[in-house]
Amino acid sequence: MAGAATNNGAGRGRPGYDLDSLLRTAVKVFHERGYDGTSMEDLAKRLGITKSAIYYHVSSKQELLRMSVDRALDALFAVLDEPESLEGPAIDRLHHVVRRSVEVLVDELPFVTLLLRVRGNSKVERQALARRREFDHLVGELVAEAERAGSLRLDLDPALTSRLLFGMVNSVIEWYRPRQGLTKEEIAEAVTTIAFEGLKRHD
Amino acid sequence: MAGAATNNGAGRGRPGYDLDSLLRTAVKVFHERGYDGTSMEDLAKRLGITKSAIYYHVSSKQELLRMSVDRALDALFAVLDEPESLEGPAIDRLHHVVRRSVEVLVDELPFVTLLLRVRGNSKVERQALARRREFDHLVGELVAEAERAGSLRLDLDPALTSRLLFGMVNSVIEWYRPRQGLTKEEIAEAVTTIAFEGLKRHD
Repeated sequence: MAGAATNNGAGRGRPGYDLDSLLRTAVKVFHERGYDGTSMEDLAKRLGITKSAIYYHVSSKQELLRMSVDRALDALFAVLDEPESLEGPAIDRLHHVVRRSVEVLVDELPFVTLLLRVRGNSKVERQALARRREFDHLVGELVAEAERAGSLRLDLDPALTSRLLFGMVNSVIEWYRPRQGLTKEEIAEAVTTIAFEGLKRHD
Repeated sequence: MAGAATNNGAGRGRPGYDLDSLLRTAVKVFHERGYDGTSMEDLAKRLGITKSAIYYHVSSKQELLRMSVDRALDALFAVLDEPESLEGPAIDRLHHVVRRSVEVLVDELPFVTLLLRVRGNSKVERQALARRREFDHLVGELVAEAERAGSLRLDLDPALTSRLLFGMVNSVIEWYRPRQGLTKEEIAEAVTTIAFEGLKRHD
């Protein structure tokens, strides 16, 4: 999961200082004050370090944003490369992608939350939106493939279906808080059960 | 649907001027510039009227916000009072509430979008959040009732279920745009089909 951050920071790490903590704190402050409302000075104060200690790791606030949203995107795209996403009937691959996406969302909650709030106000944000659209497109293709294979209800439009499916997945960021008693597996199970089997009991 | 606005503005209406247009434009500007970033001066400019013409209808920016979120909330609560929400098996009442909530969301898109973005930064916002929680609580009770009646899959937690259900419903604000070819009935049908029957085809 930390692949993006680790790769982007390759060669820049300094013993005793942690890029992961820097990103986590930056994202927390972005959520509290808004990205535009946060200065590198604010971040330095919150971290209890100097601005130059931050610049040792990243060149700008934009780079902090890029590394944070890439962390979420890399984790989501990694799901599409898992063997269960690549082999077997389309309906089972779709099921796997939905289940694992919920787990990634819980694992990388602050980073995915930041990603989902990006509105395209800068180059970094537009690149993130483009990667999100690519992810949505790939999921949409999987839905269409499952439909062609006859595994889905025929009365549903694939594009609308994938939007609603990921609408339910992404809604988890609105209420999920760590340590509230639900595991990521329980949430993923509830999402996939509702989405694939439906709420209604059929005896 | 305009019940809240009409009631709140009772006795204040002036022939030739339209409170509905005032609210619609205010909400549009709030979405573009943020509520905090919008002044009454900004609104007057956009409307092409004077500030005092706005103050003829509302006493403050806070009142514009309150009337806008109340419009969404009143429309959602009105769904719970419809005969189909009050009579019959709980599963059918829940189905009706979900279907009609999607329709209200499409009908009142800018107002519901504003409501869903409220974070509790003022008394008006905290009152709106309290009413949202009351609505969620009533839906949660309906899910629990349907479960007790044996109409739902037993392996789903009612609170989690209603959160995910309305997570899917509310996600429509993220992508729905009027005049894109989908009717509110089609979207409501897709949401209820996925949520109640599931994506998977069972022959």
